[in-house]
Amino acid sequence: MFENEDRESKRSRTRAHIREVALRSLRERGYDGTTMRGIATDAGLSVGNAYYHFPTKDHLVQELYVDVQQEHRAVALPQLAVEDDLTARVGIVVRTGLANLRGYHAIAPQFLAAAMAPGSPINPLSTESSAARDLVLGLFREAVDAARQQLPRDLAGDLPIALWTGYLLLTLFWTYDTSAEQARTARLVDAMLRVLRFALPMLRIRPFRSAVTEIVGIVAGRLA
Amino acid sequence: MFENEDRESKRSRTRAHIREVALRSLRERGYDGTTMRGIATDAGLSVGNAYYHFPTKDHLVQELYVDVQQEHRAVALPQLAVEDDLTARVGIVVRTGLANLRGYHAIAPQFLAAAMAPGSPINPLSTESSAARDLVLGLFREAVDAARQQLPRDLAGDLPIALWTGYLLLTLFWTYDTSAEQARTARLVDAMLRVLRFALPMLRIRPFRSAVTEIVGIVAGRLA
Repeated sequence: MFENEDRESKRSRTRAHIREVALRSLRERGYDGTTMRGIATDAGLSVGNAYYHFPTKDHLVQELYVDVQQEHRAVALPQLAVEDDLTARVGIVVRTGLANLRGYHAIAPQFLAAAMAPGSPINPLSTESSAARDLVLGLFREAVDAARQQLPRDLAGDLPIALWTGYLLLTLFWTYDTSAEQARTARLVDAMLRVLRFALPMLRIRPFRSAVTEIVGIVAGRLA
Repeated sequence: MFENEDRESKRSRTRAHIREVALRSLRERGYDGTTMRGIATDAGLSVGNAYYHFPTKDHLVQELYVDVQQEHRAVALPQLAVEDDLTARVGIVVRTGLANLRGYHAIAPQFLAAAMAPGSPINPLSTESSAARDLVLGLFREAVDAARQQLPRDLAGDLPIALWTGYLLLTLFWTYDTSAEQARTARLVDAMLRVLRFALPMLRIRPFRSAVTEIVGIVAGRLA
């Protein structure tokens, strides 16, 4: 029993160490220049041991994705618990998400090309990325579902996926943002939330609601 | 004189032939698998002759970009000449642009990863792509400037760049769109134009106008 715990904690220490080394390698050598062999060497492990923990570089990236999303949730959930306005709740999820990514801005361009390819396992839309994706999608769903403002059901059902897609596009803008501490992205988020706050009551107007519902449905992949 | 014309027409025939061969290679081997050496072989030219016309693969891609934008303008301009409604004019530019890209959908995913990297010369935001970019930006500028509806000056100045950015994001959606003839993208465009038509008169309302103007300014890169 004790021995099992020791083994388990040694295992998670080793994995954490490998992740740290991998992050440094991604920063210094880019995605393409990072190899499991190089990570093993830098981490002072045998190649076999490194492969035991992560069969491929992409498995490692998926674990990093999940880590990042869990950190994001840990910061966002307490703030969501004390806010019931829909726009403010969406703002909490987006702002805590971008703040949590700050330390990764240096490696973001390296990642971008590798992750954008439609067939890539580290594409955020891939099957392989579904664990990480579900974590952040879940945050947007909570932001919408527990808000004071109740939306028409079809819109409310698809909105979290559309918001998440918008959030991916924002991280694309953020990757290209060379302003100090990505201040431009922060101002863009502020202005977009002001538009959202203005637009929500307009959803009572039928042609606007129908167009928005259609956009959200198409983006969410529900409408063909 | 005649000899010069002959030489000129032979030159442009050779360049057109190289471009055709390059497109086939991009479709079959992807961006990374396409080389000037391979293009020369396929085109029945010496490597030196191919390099004389295009010093690098990226020079060739830039010429393809410019070709595509010129085809786009040739189709869009006559339609713009007989329409003065702003939303309809934006619709003309977006729809003719996507229709003109149809033949390239098969190679779009190959291109995407190569083009998305921030430092890439074939990135649509790069200095190298400015000739092609200016052609399509010019179309959006004409769509806005000659419309019946006149916008506040700061908004009208930045709107073409913001529309062009939106158009790039649409082509990103289109690249991932596996529906028959990219029908999903076409429906998305329709619904977005309905939102634009609904939103334009709302610009009279100050908080909405100020938020939209700020978003457009940030996206256009004018606001820090």
